[in-house]
Amino acid sequence: MYASASRYGPLLTDLYQLTMLQGYYAAGMTAPAVFELFVRKLPPGRNFLVAAGLAQALAFIEELRFGPAELDWIASSGHFDAGFAERLQDLRFSGDVEAVPEGTVCFPNEPLVRVTAPLPEAQLLESRLLNLVHYQTLVASKAARAVLVAGGKRLIDFGLRRAHGAEAGLFAARASYLAGFDGTATALAGPAFGIPVFGTMAHSFVQAHDDEAAAFETFAGAFPHNAVLLLDTYDTVAAARKVVELAPRLRARGIEVRGVRLDSGDLGALAREVRAVLDAGGLEQAIIFASGNLDEYRVQALARTPIDSFGVGTSLVTSADAPYLDAVYKLQEYAGKPRRKRSAGKATWPGRKQVYREYARDGTLARDVVTLDADRRAGEPLLVPAMRDGRRVGPASDLAAIRAHTRRELERLPPRLRTLADAAPPYPVEIAPALAALAATVDRATGGVTEKEEQ
Amino acid sequence: MYASASRYGPLLTDLYQLTMLQGYYAAGMTAPAVFELFVRKLPPGRNFLVAAGLAQALAFIEELRFGPAELDWIASSGHFDAGFAERLQDLRFSGDVEAVPEGTVCFPNEPLVRVTAPLPEAQLLESRLLNLVHYQTLVASKAARAVLVAGGKRLIDFGLRRAHGAEAGLFAARASYLAGFDGTATALAGPAFGIPVFGTMAHSFVQAHDDEAAAFETFAGAFPHNAVLLLDTYDTVAAARKVVELAPRLRARGIEVRGVRLDSGDLGALAREVRAVLDAGGLEQAIIFASGNLDEYRVQALARTPIDSFGVGTSLVTSADAPYLDAVYKLQEYAGKPRRKRSAGKATWPGRKQVYREYARDGTLARDVVTLDADRRAGEPLLVPAMRDGRRVGPASDLAAIRAHTRRELERLPPRLRTLADAAPPYPVEIAPALAALAATVDRATGGVTEKEEQ
Repeated sequence: MYASASRYGPLLTDLYQLTMLQGYYAAGMTAPAVFELFVRKLPPGRNFLVAAGLAQALAFIEELRFGPAELDWIASSGHFDAGFAERLQDLRFSGDVEAVPEGTVCFPNEPLVRVTAPLPEAQLLESRLLNLVHYQTLVASKAARAVLVAGGKRLIDFGLRRAHGAEAGLFAARASYLAGFDGTATALAGPAFGIPVFGTMAHSFVQAHDDEAAAFETFAGAFPHNAVLLLDTYDTVAAARKVVELAPRLRARGIEVRGVRLDSGDLGALAREVRAVLDAGGLEQAIIFASGNLDEYRVQALARTPIDSFGVGTSLVTSADAPYLDAVYKLQEYAGKPRRKRSAGKATWPGRKQVYREYARDGTLARDVVTLDADRRAGEPLLVPAMRDGRRVGPASDLAAIRAHTRRELERLPPRLRTLADAAPPYPVEIAPALAALAATVDRATGGVTEKEEQ
Repeated sequence: MYASASRYGPLLTDLYQLTMLQGYYAAGMTAPAVFELFVRKLPPGRNFLVAAGLAQALAFIEELRFGPAELDWIASSGHFDAGFAERLQDLRFSGDVEAVPEGTVCFPNEPLVRVTAPLPEAQLLESRLLNLVHYQTLVASKAARAVLVAGGKRLIDFGLRRAHGAEAGLFAARASYLAGFDGTATALAGPAFGIPVFGTMAHSFVQAHDDEAAAFETFAGAFPHNAVLLLDTYDTVAAARKVVELAPRLRARGIEVRGVRLDSGDLGALAREVRAVLDAGGLEQAIIFASGNLDEYRVQALARTPIDSFGVGTSLVTSADAPYLDAVYKLQEYAGKPRRKRSAGKATWPGRKQVYREYARDGTLARDVVTLDADRRAGEPLLVPAMRDGRRVGPASDLAAIRAHTRRELERLPPRLRTLADAAPPYPVEIAPALAALAATVDRATGGVTEKEEQ
């Protein structure tokens, strides 16, 4: 029942990865290639990214193989030569992967994953590697914004129903948790990732009863220590009064109402009214949970109200204001030679790269410098070994440790990057002289002209 | 290797569905319930929806059961009573489902799926049913817009890499194909759904070669009848000239270039230049494929250029301008009594409903009327039986037939709904007097006031 990123197998890819593989094999092009996965630019309104999805990406890479069903399809699809399926039978990923650890704050033009492997193996990873890293990075980056402005209030992922499919629901729970959310409503994320799972009740539970107070009593009886009662099916404040009236009878049965949930209306004003009703009724310990079209902007606006916990759903799991990142996976070196794409507006920096991060005296991030891997610089290198000769290296992914790392990373953000407004100036990501010089050399060699790069 | 919507099992749900189940069982509330899945309002800029995802939803419902791993988690999670896991052991869906057939044009406030079953069974479906129907309806609705303005040009889904996880990639291929796309680049969608799969080549293939023309020759040699050569790695028009120079040598080997792809720059202007170069060089048969940040607006703007095929990716699979629909699943009747939620801005129409569609004399859609199931009216009922006593009824889902149905549906759209602009007036969806009367009755019974409904 658990989520495995490899369960979809190697055909969850763009057909052209497979046609290119056949082309590479036909031409004997199996020398080492270096590909880098990076984001070309930030979406509007974002100041940074939080790297995520590497654990699933590495599982996918390590377990990549063509089984009988996939080989049958390849042999019979009409897209490929007769011998191609046979050639794929023993294909395994045998290369190296360097990556920015999950939870690390990162920026455009910085490689998040660097793959070094025989060209066909490295090429074959592209579509699914992007699919895995892109989405979790998207959601972790969005979630971190809510964490930064929630004033320590509790945040729960509520998004499964409008997530784009099953994996999106599961991975959104993981990505938001590692970014600092406190848990998720998605039950499967508990057994799959060890994430705390939270639940309240739905309107249907209240509606199915002829009487709202009876619904509350039934639910509290079923969950004597953990019932969060939903107040807004008919009239929120009237429902709060019913909870107060009910409390002594419940208490006599040993039942304590854990809290209430507001899901519509003016949440801030209702929270104040409901808090007053609960407090006057001796339910000072009952928490107030709020949900309903929340995003980081609404969380910020409501952080100083009596709301204790926020359920953030659709806007989080779809990253509604920026539902994708301009993430790409590009060939930067083949057979020892740096490579460069010069397409209009989409040119890349060639060569095998590293990112060095420099910190200010107060410990906050000062600037990043992107350079060639061979160009050692001062600062902290962001890319670290993740896979050697096709096997994962280093400790297994531990979500609690990743979450703690993210928290430290967010603490080190310069104040201007910690707000929901565009940082001015944006965080500096500089291209080292060694890398700029290589780009110019590559352009001269391929007859092109170095264009001004966007950063 | 195929996609099954049931593979994630019953824990891919919100925890509160399970807590409510325990509450319902505790209170003996297992009478028949009617839930309806519907969209509350259209996103900005949209004039209609295309229903999709039902095949996966029905598979999920029919195969729903708790296996040993799920029962173990429930028993040991600490969230539930001791006897609850045992109670779930034999749970199967035993109810009825009515639904709007996939590919049907539909509108807000119209039930897309209506579930009638013992309350716990119907409740348990909510999260995953929404997750499945919401996403495919979202993508099919977006894809149909591109189909309507493409002027018959070919459309291919290119979106896997930035889809939100594996299922999103696969389901986007299915939803866009049923809406009228010609195929997908996602290989697994071929064996999983029988969708035509298309592929070209990537920049990395060109970059891995020291010489662009050599890359073209290698690739064409590997795919003698089907090579689409990517022109924009360095200079698009120069690359087109290389293709022309190469053509006689390839032809001598029995190889015909199938086409070229443009992926950056001013696609319309480049298509005209490249078309002229190809035609002058005797490659009149070679098609021009365009991709790169395309959406329905760009497709419309480029439909009258020499571009033959469009690859539409990220904007399609993330539905980037409207990454979610306001889709909900609401209790409308329990134990024979109509139910109504009156939350501010989120009130629902009570009772078990049907939608009747009326057509103009020219065969185009004239208006829809939402009414009670018992209130037979003139017009075509949109909801038809999909499941009886827990088993699917009617013919199995045939994607080609659904696609043909969608095409007929789109042909029947009134002209003002066939454009990318907001239709004025919007398509009329009216509430029948019988339904309005019931809502007023329910409100009086529960002490509420009928508010003005949004439509």
